[in-house]
Amino acid sequence: FPIDGRTNKPRTEGLTMVIDKGLGINETKDLFEVAANYVDFLKLGFGTSSLYDQEILSQKINLAKEYGVMIYPGGTFMEIAISQNKLEEYISMACKLGYPAVEISDGTVNISQEVRERAIAMALDAGLLVLTEVGKKNLRDKVQIEHYVKQIRQDLGCGAFRVIIEGRESGKDAGFYDGKGRFVAGEMEQILEAAGDTNLLIWEAPLKHQQQGLITMFGPNVNLGNIPANEALALEALRVGLRGDTLRLQFE
Amino acid sequence: FPIDGRTNKPRTEGLTMVIDKGLGINETKDLFEVAANYVDFLKLGFGTSSLYDQEILSQKINLAKEYGVMIYPGGTFMEIAISQNKLEEYISMACKLGYPAVEISDGTVNISQEVRERAIAMALDAGLLVLTEVGKKNLRDKVQIEHYVKQIRQDLGCGAFRVIIEGRESGKDAGFYDGKGRFVAGEMEQILEAAGDTNLLIWEAPLKHQQQGLITMFGPNVNLGNIPANEALALEALRVGLRGDTLRLQFE
Amino acid sequence: FPIDGRTNKPRTEGLTMVIDKGLGINETKDLFEVAANYVDFLKLGFGTSSLYDQEILSQKINLAKEYGVMIYPGGTFMEIAISQNKLEEYISMACKLGYPAVEISDGTVNISQEVRERAIAMALDAGLLVLTEVGKKNLRDKVQIEHYVKQIRQDLGCGAFRVIIEGRESGKDAGFYDGKGRFVAGEMEQILEAAGDTNLLIWEAPLKHQQQGLITMFGPNVNLGNIPANEALALEALRVGLRGDTLRLQFE
Repeated sequence: FPIDGRTNKPRTEGLTMVIDKGLGINETKDLFEVAANYVDFLKLGFGTSSLYDQEILSQKINLAKEYGVMIYPGGTFMEIAISQNKLEEYISMACKLGYPAVEISDGTVNISQEVRERAIAMALDAGLLVLTEVGKKNLRDKVQIEHYVKQIRQDLGCGAFRVIIEGRESGKDAGFYDGKGRFVAGEMEQILEAAGDTNLLIWEAPLKHQQQGLITMFGPNVNLGNIPANEALALEALRVGLRGDTLRLQFE
Repeated sequence: FPIDGRTNKPRTEGLTMVIDKGLGINETKDLFEVAANYVDFLKLGFGTSSLYDQEILSQKINLAKEYGVMIYPGGTFMEIAISQNKLEEYISMACKLGYPAVEISDGTVNISQEVRERAIAMALDAGLLVLTEVGKKNLRDKVQIEHYVKQIRQDLGCGAFRVIIEGRESGKDAGFYDGKGRFVAGEMEQILEAAGDTNLLIWEAPLKHQQQGLITMFGPNVNLGNIPANEALALEALRVGLRGDTLRLQFE
Repeated sequence: FPIDGRTNKPRTEGLTMVIDKGLGINETKDLFEVAANYVDFLKLGFGTSSLYDQEILSQKINLAKEYGVMIYPGGTFMEIAISQNKLEEYISMACKLGYPAVEISDGTVNISQEVRERAIAMALDAGLLVLTEVGKKNLRDKVQIEHYVKQIRQDLGCGAFRVIIEGRESGKDAGFYDGKGRFVAGEMEQILEAAGDTNLLIWEAPLKHQQQGLITMFGPNVNLGNIPANEALALEALRVGLRGDTLRLQFE
């Protein structure tokens, strides 16, 4: 491959998280047959996990297990549970359904630092892998970067496996992206400094130019999230230089 | 769910119509297994219904029947039949293939009021459910809003089950949407007044911000059409507040 | 059909080339069941062909053969092979895997005229159908139109079956398209003159307005490429006038 050093599964860096907006069983199987080696996490987007027929959901979770992909319900679902004082029920439901991981976020619902820490602790106690997310879904809710910097440090200190940097499904006008899908100047640097190690972050990067920019900046093993299911193989091509955009860099 | 009152199937309000641009048998089955409870109509977009192999088309129609989804051929196909003086043949073909509904539109072909009424009557006589559509596919063909207001009233008077408000597959520069996919000021109010009851309309809203705007305005049970197949579950999440955009409203 | 004269398979004009970004076996089968009559080539985009599990890739190639679709690996993959001095290995690998065709391009890697001709000759000798491509993936790499004019003539002279006009997967800011996906003024005319016969070209046209423009200009049997898999049937509807945009032309 034109770009060297891409990690293999099970990997701890170069993670790819795909967002699933409602894939059926055949589509899920198709994704895994083609790209399971390149997909580490499959997130059931938004609160869709609660809209599935139990039998279908159970088949999806088993299929993910079989192919070595960590499947988990989107953070919005837990935000709702917390806003309804059902944190315990949520964690226990996640375990019962067989999810290996959960995501803890406050993209829409405001959640106190105390509750956030309790949620992380409770999920860890239940044996779940914990991903946290920083950033607001709506730019109007956004608070100062100092807050996020602190939150990243605290989440990692509490045992979060990785911290996801919000980008939504659209990649625009959300989290740390502006209306054109570009990082707000200066914020990325502060996020990186807070994490200490780039590898502790997962950047939501649904758009190709975002994926390309992050790979160019951090190399083939940057952790990327919210990848559309039908772009999973194309992203892997981008990572290893099998696509014009990153291949071109080898000749400059 | 954060937003209460979402209707169940068989529903008469809160209808979702998905546009099918050429789903295969596995994909159709996937869609239904995951989202049949949330999908009321499946429209075979444009004139694609005539491009299928008969055996495959027949399988799709049977699959829809099995899952309780009303499948029907896009209005453009009937416009062509009418322009070729083949209205009778069209209706009889629809019955023979097993479609439970048809759509009568004049988005591209100009059709006289008399022929429109004849088409509605003929379809009703044949036992078909009739959806009509108002609006032109190309903004250059657009006529004054007064015409559409009158047409909505007439269609409903003639026995149309619902009137679809044109938005195309793109949601932009078509029907009643401008180049950014926003309603032309003032037109929505007149359309609503003509229908009398919002529930008698189906708004074509392929773009997320359109879906979100209509749900915010009319609640979770607004009738929406031209939903991309891979967005069907995400739309349901939006309807019931399982997605940041509508969930956020609950906290304001 | 409203537009007459659409060719049938096996066709030598009116070719449709679909870009495959990682379709699974079910999805590939779905595409072929629904649209194999309308799809002539299936290109495994970028260098994705090297990311598949051998067994899955072999199933895809066999499926394409069964449905009469010419499957081939994207040009970027051969550019990499050439840049690593592995042209022979590449051609022999393509034959061994059962690909009926290859694409020779220099969208990213600079390749001398001599090597280009050698690659064409070697592929022809191996019994492969040869598609070549002109145009750079990145507009910054673009050279003068005179170069491409010459290259088109030379490729056809060397035995290329068709010359593909670069448009990328995005259709914007690439090849001969500007940031809005429109042809740069004057270049299309020169490209046409170089080919002599429009039918010797395949226009990459991933966006609907590009497909519509080319069909309006050249008729239903213009050769089009980089069609997204889920748009294959919609494109056929556009070709034969079963979609508003081209149907409308019949009434003007």
